[in-house]
Amino acid sequence: MAKYKYAVGVWAYGSVSDRFCEQGYQQSRTFREKLKAASESKGIKGVEIHFNGDFDESSVDETKQMIDEFGLEIAAINCEIFGNRKFRKGALSANDLVIREDAMEIIRGAARAARQLGVEVVNIWPGADGHDYPFQVNFIDLWNHLISSVKSVVEEFPNQKFAIEYKGREPRGRSAISTVGTSLMMLQEIGADNFGVTIDFGHALQVKENPAESAVLLNRYGKLFHVHMNDNTRDWDDDFMVGSYHVWETLEFFYYLKKIGYQGWISLDITPAREDQIGVVEHSIEVMEQMGRFVDEMDDAFMEKLLAEQDALAVQKHLFQGIFAATVRG
Amino acid sequence: MAKYKYAVGVWAYGSVSDRFCEQGYQQSRTFREKLKAASESKGIKGVEIHFNGDFDESSVDETKQMIDEFGLEIAAINCEIFGNRKFRKGALSANDLVIREDAMEIIRGAARAARQLGVEVVNIWPGADGHDYPFQVNFIDLWNHLISSVKSVVEEFPNQKFAIEYKGREPRGRSAISTVGTSLMMLQEIGADNFGVTIDFGHALQVKENPAESAVLLNRYGKLFHVHMNDNTRDWDDDFMVGSYHVWETLEFFYYLKKIGYQGWISLDITPAREDQIGVVEHSIEVMEQMGRFVDEMDDAFMEKLLAEQDALAVQKHLFQGIFAATVRG
Amino acid sequence: MAKYKYAVGVWAYGSVSDRFCEQGYQQSRTFREKLKAASESKGIKGVEIHFNGDFDESSVDETKQMIDEFGLEIAAINCEIFGNRKFRKGALSANDLVIREDAMEIIRGAARAARQLGVEVVNIWPGADGHDYPFQVNFIDLWNHLISSVKSVVEEFPNQKFAIEYKGREPRGRSAISTVGTSLMMLQEIGADNFGVTIDFGHALQVKENPAESAVLLNRYGKLFHVHMNDNTRDWDDDFMVGSYHVWETLEFFYYLKKIGYQGWISLDITPAREDQIGVVEHSIEVMEQMGRFVDEMDDAFMEKLLAEQDALAVQKHLFQGIFAATVRG
Amino acid sequence: MAKYKYAVGVWAYGSVSDRFCEQGYQQSRTFREKLKAASESKGIKGVEIHFNGDFDESSVDETKQMIDEFGLEIAAINCEIFGNRKFRKGALSANDLVIREDAMEIIRGAARAARQLGVEVVNIWPGADGHDYPFQVNFIDLWNHLISSVKSVVEEFPNQKFAIEYKGREPRGRSAISTVGTSLMMLQEIGADNFGVTIDFGHALQVKENPAESAVLLNRYGKLFHVHMNDNTRDWDDDFMVGSYHVWETLEFFYYLKKIGYQGWISLDITPAREDQIGVVEHSIEVMEQMGRFVDEMDDAFMEKLLAEQDALAVQKHLFQGIFAATVRG
Repeated sequence: MAKYKYAVGVWAYGSVSDRFCEQGYQQSRTFREKLKAASESKGIKGVEIHFNGDFDESSVDETKQMIDEFGLEIAAINCEIFGNRKFRKGALSANDLVIREDAMEIIRGAARAARQLGVEVVNIWPGADGHDYPFQVNFIDLWNHLISSVKSVVEEFPNQKFAIEYKGREPRGRSAISTVGTSLMMLQEIGADNFGVTIDFGHALQVKENPAESAVLLNRYGKLFHVHMNDNTRDWDDDFMVGSYHVWETLEFFYYLKKIGYQGWISLDITPAREDQIGVVEHSIEVMEQMGRFVDEMDDAFMEKLLAEQDALAVQKHLFQGIFAATVRG
Repeated sequence: MAKYKYAVGVWAYGSVSDRFCEQGYQQSRTFREKLKAASESKGIKGVEIHFNGDFDESSVDETKQMIDEFGLEIAAINCEIFGNRKFRKGALSANDLVIREDAMEIIRGAARAARQLGVEVVNIWPGADGHDYPFQVNFIDLWNHLISSVKSVVEEFPNQKFAIEYKGREPRGRSAISTVGTSLMMLQEIGADNFGVTIDFGHALQVKENPAESAVLLNRYGKLFHVHMNDNTRDWDDDFMVGSYHVWETLEFFYYLKKIGYQGWISLDITPAREDQIGVVEHSIEVMEQMGRFVDEMDDAFMEKLLAEQDALAVQKHLFQGIFAATVRG
Repeated sequence: MAKYKYAVGVWAYGSVSDRFCEQGYQQSRTFREKLKAASESKGIKGVEIHFNGDFDESSVDETKQMIDEFGLEIAAINCEIFGNRKFRKGALSANDLVIREDAMEIIRGAARAARQLGVEVVNIWPGADGHDYPFQVNFIDLWNHLISSVKSVVEEFPNQKFAIEYKGREPRGRSAISTVGTSLMMLQEIGADNFGVTIDFGHALQVKENPAESAVLLNRYGKLFHVHMNDNTRDWDDDFMVGSYHVWETLEFFYYLKKIGYQGWISLDITPAREDQIGVVEHSIEVMEQMGRFVDEMDDAFMEKLLAEQDALAVQKHLFQGIFAATVRG
Repeated sequence: MAKYKYAVGVWAYGSVSDRFCEQGYQQSRTFREKLKAASESKGIKGVEIHFNGDFDESSVDETKQMIDEFGLEIAAINCEIFGNRKFRKGALSANDLVIREDAMEIIRGAARAARQLGVEVVNIWPGADGHDYPFQVNFIDLWNHLISSVKSVVEEFPNQKFAIEYKGREPRGRSAISTVGTSLMMLQEIGADNFGVTIDFGHALQVKENPAESAVLLNRYGKLFHVHMNDNTRDWDDDFMVGSYHVWETLEFFYYLKKIGYQGWISLDITPAREDQIGVVEHSIEVMEQMGRFVDEMDDAFMEKLLAEQDALAVQKHLFQGIFAATVRG
């Protein structure tokens, strides 16, 4: 039976600003208060934090203390290589070597911190790397820079796992590493055992993927290193609570996580703007637990048969009977 | 308690062709065989049929006989004003008065047939009216023609209800009457009591509407005349089985149908290409019945309170507890 | 020959933040510095400013002085009814009457300031009014509140023009007034001569409209009160520079502005994040000037004939011959 | 200076049907008549034809004769592995080995015909391979089958080039090989020198790619084997005429084709439904020629500098000055 360890990106407890509400829709919390909120969220075992944001080289020990104090683990360390104005035209893919080195140095810092803190995965989301306008960038150079920057840091720390997190767009109009396919293309070129992918459920939705299929493709090459959960409208990376839009796709995703034997963390990448933040975290975990149990209780042989026949009708009947019919007595 | 009468567009039992498979993915059926299939579909009380397609002026009596023989009612008569090559650059909005008159004459024929057959709603889906390219049409003339054509036929039959069915696109790259808003704008200009709207659940999704909200807007002006149900990927009018993609949006739609006291038909506009067609019809009805019952059993006062507070978290908890939690015992 | 007066929303000269870069991608400017930047932008005659943001009741005179000092006019006064945390679940549509009144009072303040400053249009963009999740709001109440709030303020100032600015989404997952059609539906219900619509080119693109068609629909009812220009990817309201994505749609839009005899301001609603802001403003105006001249030089009778025939091929040939062929000598 | 050889898929001269107009919007033509139409289209040197559709094993010689008679070349042979009802749940990825073998045998037939006819590229568009519903297919098996089927035929004909053509959707709700990234992922796994990719400009747009970037990625691995040109609304694979929607993206695409030294065919994959078909083909070639010349006349060093700086403003100014400003004299 699948037993996942749930984590949350601490930004779930932040002030949640956007370009129209710079103060944020929520009260702001210090890093310590965010960790406290995570520790108070039922079901949460770990957190994701940003190197060069939540903490840096100088506060590794202090961070370790707080994490321990709150009884948490670190599910992944993220690299803040997107929020500084100097990265506005690219970080790992910037034309300027100095800027690329700045970005790489942040990842190196994250890797060193991961070693100190015993964290398995350093997560790299290259948000600044892409373009806004047609005819704006030199795609040949951009991809040369991007791949060689990543390759370089990944090879410097052969004992540290790194995961690239793809996303369709935002903050740039189009991200460079935007799909499960471009991620795997890059991984196959780099060919490093310690380099894999973080699938963000909502990012996959945003680029019209079925996240379950994307997970299968990543697993095909042994590259599903980490999972971010949330939901959205498909128009945008809304980071909404789990299950609020894509019920069947979420259930199918958990079906395949079980099938491929995923063992890592499942981490919430959500930003509740108008709801109780701890409540949304706890509810999202409950939904995932319910879905995990539903999947566990499924008759595998029966489901396999239906899928082999692509019998969408029988599957839908099975899902609705398993759910609504049991609930509603006509 | 809501009690809906379910119908199906008989094209659900057709050969289901597309541009890559002109023969169709299914066996073809004659009109009679389609009616038979509808009569054999559990839960179906009525059908939708096309004037100038399934039948015409010369076969009204014969159609009546078949409908009676199979124990069916006619939920709506549709007007086939899109499939003839002459309508390829518009029917009701065509620049050529002769073509507009041809289209109007088909609607008049449908209205006369509706009178003979005692059918409440004549459904008008102006599929040919729109444009494919930027800078292709004279929008001023197009809208003048479109609105005056519709106004004219609607006023000729003051005792016959007509409903316009909006859709974002297909077969044209962009339809003229594409949203709930443009439909209501046109209705308010025409100002005829016998003229309303058919909401097609999937068409609303295609143009990024929440169908529940669209139904409320139509009801605000007493204009929700007819309902088409299906589901899709939002990218395209896939006409998939009910509940297969948008579970919450479908449930919310039924919540509001109840709330506004909708009394008309609920008609399936689906085209199962690779599944048993009768099976898909029956399953879609079962899903709608389950959702209808779920909505009936909801604690209205409680839900009203949550919605008044826009408490998305509490609503999601309520939905998941009502559904998954009752099913899955951890 | 069309002669437009160009304006710019002063936020074009702001720090341009987003959720990943709260400091903003640009240097920040004070209100006065923004006005100065506008005055230094070649081609700019007017500005758009926010009541309850850039200025308020207490600083009307001071604002007047600065505007005069920089030789500018005010193209429209916008109402800042979206950025305060209290509006996070709606402003004009909020369930709480106190909050609705707060929002209405801001619009009233804008209207009084407009009277003092001699500004023709008060622009209302109800960004906070909508929903994020399926099954989150009471659509019946939401629309009742929204329409009656707007109706109320519009009727209080019969000599002041107000314009509603529709938008598909952001900051809410789905806006209430999202399309040209819902705008017109609301306008027809309210039925006030002093109430019209601001079309934002990019907002129209976002909801799959062809902005030229939307302008024609607004003009059909005499309701095209104001124009916002920009461009985007259609996925999101990017507020990019004019002409950078939708060349033909922009040209067609100016063709119809001329055809319907639009006389108001054309105002840039752009937020250059990584480019010289004054440069982007000036370039956008130059593009609009070029398009305006191109449209002026078109053979109207010839174009009318092509559009009447929906001869997309001949139109495309005409456009490419008029543009590329003249430039490139093969 | 870039000199492309232009071809056209002969379906551009077909009846162009869709699900609402099975008779088609155009007169139908026999295969011979289509070839004749291609030969009469100014600028066309080659055609794309379908094995198992336009011709088969028994008519290779006859096809050769007609091609020669009309003075054409064959730019690519396509494999008709999607239009037969038996392929409705997959061809190369079908669970049933017999069906997979049927599909593979069609590709083998195309390869043998290519050898006889001296055609460089066999194009494989696996339209039937994908899924319609969430939770419908076994993704693990689907990808195993799909990749091993392709690998098998590609390895059987080491001297024949094959190209996979990715597409987001249609006829299935979601295609398996849907992006440039999944294509390259598969190619890297298979690792055959004779196996590359056909980029279809519109397919890339449909999945939110910038086609220029996709071409660069394909070229990075030496895998840009073939090019299909058209345009669309991004919502759907409309197969519209070149340049009718995405002017800058098309120009940028030709900029990069030149930069990477693409030497193959450029083939029109268009389906004019309401326009003169030969006219649309000729216009599309003229647009590509104009863009090719524009790109040739660009100051490469200057453009390189702007792109290196991601100076979107300067690039846009350059494009508009090069085009509109030269045309329109204010």
